[in-house]
Amino acid sequence: MTTLLLSTGWHQDEWLANWRATAPDRPILRHGQDDYDPAAIDYVLTWKPPAGVLRTLPNLKAVFNLGAGVDGLMADPDLPPVPLVRLVDDDMTYRMGEWVILQVLTHFRQALAYLDVQRKHEWREFEQPAANAARVGLMGYGTLARHCAPILLSLGFTVHGWSRSQRPSDITLYYGAEGLDAFLKRTDILVCLLPLTEDTRGILDAGLIARLGGESPLGPVLINAGRGGLQTEADILAALRSGALKGASLDVFNEEPLPADDPMWDAPNLVITPHVAAVSDPTSTLRNIVRQIEAFERGEPLRNVVDTIRGY
Amino acid sequence: MTTLLLSTGWHQDEWLANWRATAPDRPILRHGQDDYDPAAIDYVLTWKPPAGVLRTLPNLKAVFNLGAGVDGLMADPDLPPVPLVRLVDDDMTYRMGEWVILQVLTHFRQALAYLDVQRKHEWREFEQPAANAARVGLMGYGTLARHCAPILLSLGFTVHGWSRSQRPSDITLYYGAEGLDAFLKRTDILVCLLPLTEDTRGILDAGLIARLGGESPLGPVLINAGRGGLQTEADILAALRSGALKGASLDVFNEEPLPADDPMWDAPNLVITPHVAAVSDPTSTLRNIVRQIEAFERGEPLRNVVDTIRGY
Repeated sequence: MTTLLLSTGWHQDEWLANWRATAPDRPILRHGQDDYDPAAIDYVLTWKPPAGVLRTLPNLKAVFNLGAGVDGLMADPDLPPVPLVRLVDDDMTYRMGEWVILQVLTHFRQALAYLDVQRKHEWREFEQPAANAARVGLMGYGTLARHCAPILLSLGFTVHGWSRSQRPSDITLYYGAEGLDAFLKRTDILVCLLPLTEDTRGILDAGLIARLGGESPLGPVLINAGRGGLQTEADILAALRSGALKGASLDVFNEEPLPADDPMWDAPNLVITPHVAAVSDPTSTLRNIVRQIEAFERGEPLRNVVDTIRGY
Repeated sequence: MTTLLLSTGWHQDEWLANWRATAPDRPILRHGQDDYDPAAIDYVLTWKPPAGVLRTLPNLKAVFNLGAGVDGLMADPDLPPVPLVRLVDDDMTYRMGEWVILQVLTHFRQALAYLDVQRKHEWREFEQPAANAARVGLMGYGTLARHCAPILLSLGFTVHGWSRSQRPSDITLYYGAEGLDAFLKRTDILVCLLPLTEDTRGILDAGLIARLGGESPLGPVLINAGRGGLQTEADILAALRSGALKGASLDVFNEEPLPADDPMWDAPNLVITPHVAAVSDPTSTLRNIVRQIEAFERGEPLRNVVDTIRGY
């Protein structure tokens, strides 16, 4: 059972070394570096594969994505008819949780304003509501949001979610296009955890920002830990400058790395992190994937298989 | 049943207005501003009372402290033999929880370093362990720590506590002088929630900092949401400058406001907030106290009464 590593750059040596440590009995080859017989490949580990390569592997059994977002994989217009498996890894879920909670509290507790007066040696207090006055809206209600919701509730926040379709939930969940307006109106702090699909590209734009928060004096604040492609960045920049957004945290951008001369770097009340909200830990990721392969070979079904119609 | 407001400054008018809104049937008088008959006073609301005044009230039934720390009240050497009631208020507990979690994540996720590279327009990633590699030690295991512990656990941190004496707990709890060393050695991020007593004054000093973290490469980080008097500030400053402390968050200081020329303002990796971690909300506090008075008048025992021997 041979595995092919098919990624464009992205720490290729580290993945390879980790695979060999995690699954020493399972041969691995690198596309673009090792010669291989396409018919000998059973599994692919991939991140943003070059288009068309997956289709050339006649005996492929499954494809495992090395990161949480599958938009890079779905960009291949000629995907083979095998299960494409999303990475749903506890390690990444927890890391994303840390980042989301940190950003929510940073804005809610006015940390940037306090750092600013600290730099000026000023002992100055800002008015501060309690968390139960602030409504956090989780946009996209998958594994990550379900991890964050109870933590936000424990902190005292009012929490609700929005999902593409109806699903069971412990919090108030709005869904579908028809639920979006009610969801946004009741949201002071928007946490976007959506996948990037043709439906969601550019969704974080001026129109959406204008619908946030209803009549509340708090926020609105925008936190995006999803994909850069969800952002209409010129609109976010304008909203931060005008005060239509009181703050934002962005871990992802349409162009990464964000160019040094991009005006976003200096936008008011914006926290930028360089796509590090939830970096996959190769050891944890590959252990997870090897466990799935072993289960698959015992005849168990693969979990977290991409629905190619909805795109994630 | 008459109540006396006995505080030195500290938003006196706001407390008064809120009391009248909360308990319109219960007369209230202000020490230092209203003439009153000491024998007519049944209850006192106080914050840092002038020494000796409480003793002049012959019919006093109970004293209610308007903030969480009772060190200002206990500084009166001639306290009357009536119940002194600490403020234990959900609103303050939640606010303190927000602040503690924010500070833990700020240091753990290297937020100050990321803000620094953002200012320089640099897209730079720092190595980041997962939360389960970091051990948070809660020093002082009362209401506040019991609120924070499950939230830190949900975030993935390893959590343990230290308490003056043995008590039931869901986390590993070290206790007493004999447990302190083992507690500190296993602590990467120290969250101090101790009361200020003669035993704890200046406890956050070079000796304690040197014992933190054992051989771990993480931290140590010091977070103090207790009282400024717990801090030996020259030692904390030196430890931040030498790197013996990787970071700190202090909400309280020996002298408040912190003087504009204090070197602490510019200490590396130090977050300063101006005693705002958990500001009592007058409405919530007084509603809590009025409920306790009503229960007391029905013959129920008062809760959260200060043990004057241990000092909190």
